[in-house]
Amino acid sequence: MTQTVYLVVGASRGIGLALATKLSENPDNYVIASYRSATTASKLLELAKKPNVDTVVVDIADEDCKEQLEKGLAKLTDGLDVAIINAGISKSTLPILECSRELFMEHFLTNTIGALEAYKAAHGFLLKRNTRKVVFTSSNAGSIGTYLPLPVGAYGTSKAALNFVIRRLSDENAGENFSYVGVHPGLVVTDMAKGLMEKMENSPTDPMALAFSEYLKNHGITAETSAEGIVTTISMLSPHTSGRLVRVDDQTDFPF
Amino acid sequence: MTQTVYLVVGASRGIGLALATKLSENPDNYVIASYRSATTASKLLELAKKPNVDTVVVDIADEDCKEQLEKGLAKLTDGLDVAIINAGISKSTLPILECSRELFMEHFLTNTIGALEAYKAAHGFLLKRNTRKVVFTSSNAGSIGTYLPLPVGAYGTSKAALNFVIRRLSDENAGENFSYVGVHPGLVVTDMAKGLMEKMENSPTDPMALAFSEYLKNHGITAETSAEGIVTTISMLSPHTSGRLVRVDDQTDFPF
Repeated sequence: MTQTVYLVVGASRGIGLALATKLSENPDNYVIASYRSATTASKLLELAKKPNVDTVVVDIADEDCKEQLEKGLAKLTDGLDVAIINAGISKSTLPILECSRELFMEHFLTNTIGALEAYKAAHGFLLKRNTRKVVFTSSNAGSIGTYLPLPVGAYGTSKAALNFVIRRLSDENAGENFSYVGVHPGLVVTDMAKGLMEKMENSPTDPMALAFSEYLKNHGITAETSAEGIVTTISMLSPHTSGRLVRVDDQTDFPF
Repeated sequence: MTQTVYLVVGASRGIGLALATKLSENPDNYVIASYRSATTASKLLELAKKPNVDTVVVDIADEDCKEQLEKGLAKLTDGLDVAIINAGISKSTLPILECSRELFMEHFLTNTIGALEAYKAAHGFLLKRNTRKVVFTSSNAGSIGTYLPLPVGAYGTSKAALNFVIRRLSDENAGENFSYVGVHPGLVVTDMAKGLMEKMENSPTDPMALAFSEYLKNHGITAETSAEGIVTTISMLSPHTSGRLVRVDDQTDFPF
């Protein structure tokens, strides 16, 4: 039996690691997981001892991200069934009037352009198989339609741009059996979220930030729960419903 | 009587020039218009012979855009009533899988980050007066909710990001009497649009591009008509309806 081949970009921790772990539990799956730096990827490198898990080193913000990832993939497989582009950063809780040009650029380079460059690397491998399912980790923090007043302006802006990319990819490659989806993974208590919470707690002038931090502490879900929702989302993907944003807890659409 | 002070960023041609021209017809208005290069700003420099029009040179993609514009403004006025951030670029009709990292970056640097940097320069001057009306030239090409399948992926992505910035500014500065709006100026036959049309006509494999080019030729409006709509939009702005995207032909909202 041919294994189902998954790529998980950004799998050293958080949702990406939980996804790689969950997917690898099924021996019919083969998981290729990417990470940026060995110093923060010890859990993933431990997971990669399993026969159906391999890793690729790539920083999606790098200029040659596409070439690095293509080269890494080519050594491991001739095709992909599912590409999950999960890597992302969220580094600031500043009001956008105080966010520097460089900070905005950094978020675009990773969360928008980097995500697209990583996808570009996967595209040719997806064409080799017929499954062609593509998941981008987005966030309701980047939705304008259900705008949430959180102090993550640079992050939200880059995710709003990513949402447009997802919509556009879906349109440009319609008719080739691709299904693209952006997922809102839920309020997941990851290291990234914990870092943001700390920053928010140090912004006592922003009551929304404090309330949100408190909410996340009391109602945040685990990366494992989120990963289960993403796996369910993948199982339900279809080219006929491509180009949406989906909440992974209840599979409902959320507005852009 | 105190004049109403307008800033129009990106006024050398197209909608910006039409806006500066229209606004300057009223002697109660004082118009500060920015341009990037004297070589393409001859019409604006002619307009600036009027007593109520002055100019500032600034490239909003420049690293020191904010400082340049602040310095220029400080020489001319101590306050602004209305800031119109109109400068933008649209350089590609490529599918986004073929758009380079650099091309995306260039669009973000001008249309998203540059627009915000220009606004940052205006912010302090707007605080000196109570009008505090802010207009960003957006586009329905950057709306995901009313997604139009046009071959302007890099441009659309940067405008989707700009839409988030507008929404976020509106939220962060609520309670300070600001009103922010993104405008869809209509299908305006500007030099930029003409350049795009030519590119689209050279992409015969994209029927949508050809149809759109044809549509623009037959139904496109002039920059003057668009500018009139923007002036009407400004007259109707209110802090109570801040943070929207508005069609300037009929003042209706369009979805993000």
